[in-house]
Amino acid sequence: MAIAVLRNDDKTNAWRSLLRSKAPDIPVYDYKDSFPKEEIRMAAVWKHPAGSLSAFPNLLGIQGLGAGVDFILEDPDADPGIPVMRVVDPYLASDMAEYVLAQIMAYLRGLYVHASDKGQKKWNPAPYRRIEDLRVGIMGMGQLGTAVAGLLGRTGFRVQGWARTPKNASVEVYHGPKGLPDFLQQSDVLVCLLPLTPETQGILSASLLEGLPQGAFLINVARGPLLVDQDLIDALDTGRLSAACLDVFHQEPLPREHLFWEHPNVWITPHVASVTDPDSVADQVIRNYRALIEGRPPENLIDRRKGY
Amino acid sequence: MAIAVLRNDDKTNAWRSLLRSKAPDIPVYDYKDSFPKEEIRMAAVWKHPAGSLSAFPNLLGIQGLGAGVDFILEDPDADPGIPVMRVVDPYLASDMAEYVLAQIMAYLRGLYVHASDKGQKKWNPAPYRRIEDLRVGIMGMGQLGTAVAGLLGRTGFRVQGWARTPKNASVEVYHGPKGLPDFLQQSDVLVCLLPLTPETQGILSASLLEGLPQGAFLINVARGPLLVDQDLIDALDTGRLSAACLDVFHQEPLPREHLFWEHPNVWITPHVASVTDPDSVADQVIRNYRALIEGRPPENLIDRRKGY
Repeated sequence: MAIAVLRNDDKTNAWRSLLRSKAPDIPVYDYKDSFPKEEIRMAAVWKHPAGSLSAFPNLLGIQGLGAGVDFILEDPDADPGIPVMRVVDPYLASDMAEYVLAQIMAYLRGLYVHASDKGQKKWNPAPYRRIEDLRVGIMGMGQLGTAVAGLLGRTGFRVQGWARTPKNASVEVYHGPKGLPDFLQQSDVLVCLLPLTPETQGILSASLLEGLPQGAFLINVARGPLLVDQDLIDALDTGRLSAACLDVFHQEPLPREHLFWEHPNVWITPHVASVTDPDSVADQVIRNYRALIEGRPPENLIDRRKGY
Repeated sequence: MAIAVLRNDDKTNAWRSLLRSKAPDIPVYDYKDSFPKEEIRMAAVWKHPAGSLSAFPNLLGIQGLGAGVDFILEDPDADPGIPVMRVVDPYLASDMAEYVLAQIMAYLRGLYVHASDKGQKKWNPAPYRRIEDLRVGIMGMGQLGTAVAGLLGRTGFRVQGWARTPKNASVEVYHGPKGLPDFLQQSDVLVCLLPLTPETQGILSASLLEGLPQGAFLINVARGPLLVDQDLIDALDTGRLSAACLDVFHQEPLPREHLFWEHPNVWITPHVASVTDPDSVADQVIRNYRALIEGRPPENLIDRRKGY
């Protein structure tokens, strides 16, 4: 009985070494190596290559190695009868909150404009805005959204949330399609932290953006396909939005020919808002492996009907 | 009896109109106009032209129109027997705090590096740092320093202060030359908010910067002459400092030939960390004028021996 690590990046080996060092009794394989596939009871995956999951006939569970598991649920090779788990990095939510705070503060104080002025040796003392001037709306009030609301609240921002269903939270949370217009109307900054599901794909569209106050600022730190790229460009070009900060994209790395690269009011970061730290989640992966083997319920199980 | 407004920028007229609208009974003159100079009882000044104060034989007080008054105390035409006042903008301290938070968050999350990468269409997911990784040291624990410490503390930073004399504050405050080495050694970020006095001029020198942890980050939001420019460049070039954020300079606007403009690790903003809002302080100026006329003590009087 063993674990196989399947990733689309160069971190497969690091993960294998880490899991082995934490649990020397568990065999851990790199999916690209040759080993007896029927031994594998858990696949530990991050955007694994298409088809790679079909190799294992005796899987008891699929362990996502990040917060989002959309890429597993969309995989036709992931048998719906096999439990899917995500990891909950204790830093994942606070890292996300700090990233969002950094981008909102940069927006408030015009730091990107000052950086561009510096490149031209331009002394341009433009006016600035204050924390009290902006109302922040957070779409998606799960673990990450709640952490973002908490940090922004402590910093002094007025914060509200929107979720699919009613939530108990320390801030007002609108819910469902009926709650959306009022929520959007009061969001000078819109932070998208929704999970990617068939229901949310393309939700950041022209019609949604039109519901925001004139000159609003969009931050998408969830998943690229939540956004209709061309609708964002149109909203920026008409002034409906003043700027957008994007950490996630339909295709990553963002292709060189994409219009976002050259748009002056789009700020790009390379999917670094919150990066899972293997060291802080390896123990969860090992606990889940042992739970599967021993027939106990694993941690952080995904509800396939909800998609998260 | 009247007020004269003396400024080196294009805001003299706006100030005159504002004071007149708030107190129609008080004559307010632009120093460049012709009017009976002996009528002037208060000079309301911001970096007034050299020699311009000598025109008024019957001054009862000099009212600075910003938080810093060094330019008044250095003016040989400002009779030491005449009281000097500054304005205390209710937003001045919170604006400063928000600026410092914005720059520290930008540093933590590498936003200037990401902005530069974007210009080159470069996808470079560099690691980031966390609020818990940085200890922030604030030099100058007056009204502004205290506000900065408060906001950074609420956001989660470990904060300490340094001041000339012992202070009661919500954070640990080192003091005097003896307290400086310990303070510096624990300041991964050094925020300078000292008043400019003969004692503090050039305090941000090579010997001070050498006391900081390797790779520290300097923020100067006080006055340009506190810093020895060449010492900063040397500290950046040897890696002693990782970056510096400067809002103030020996000469403003910063001359086009200055080395700071082209240094990759110097971030420049054009003296916008905290800008006095005339609307929020005009009433103080008027109250001080009436106090001078009626022989009562004005508000926010400067202690010439301390220099602030």
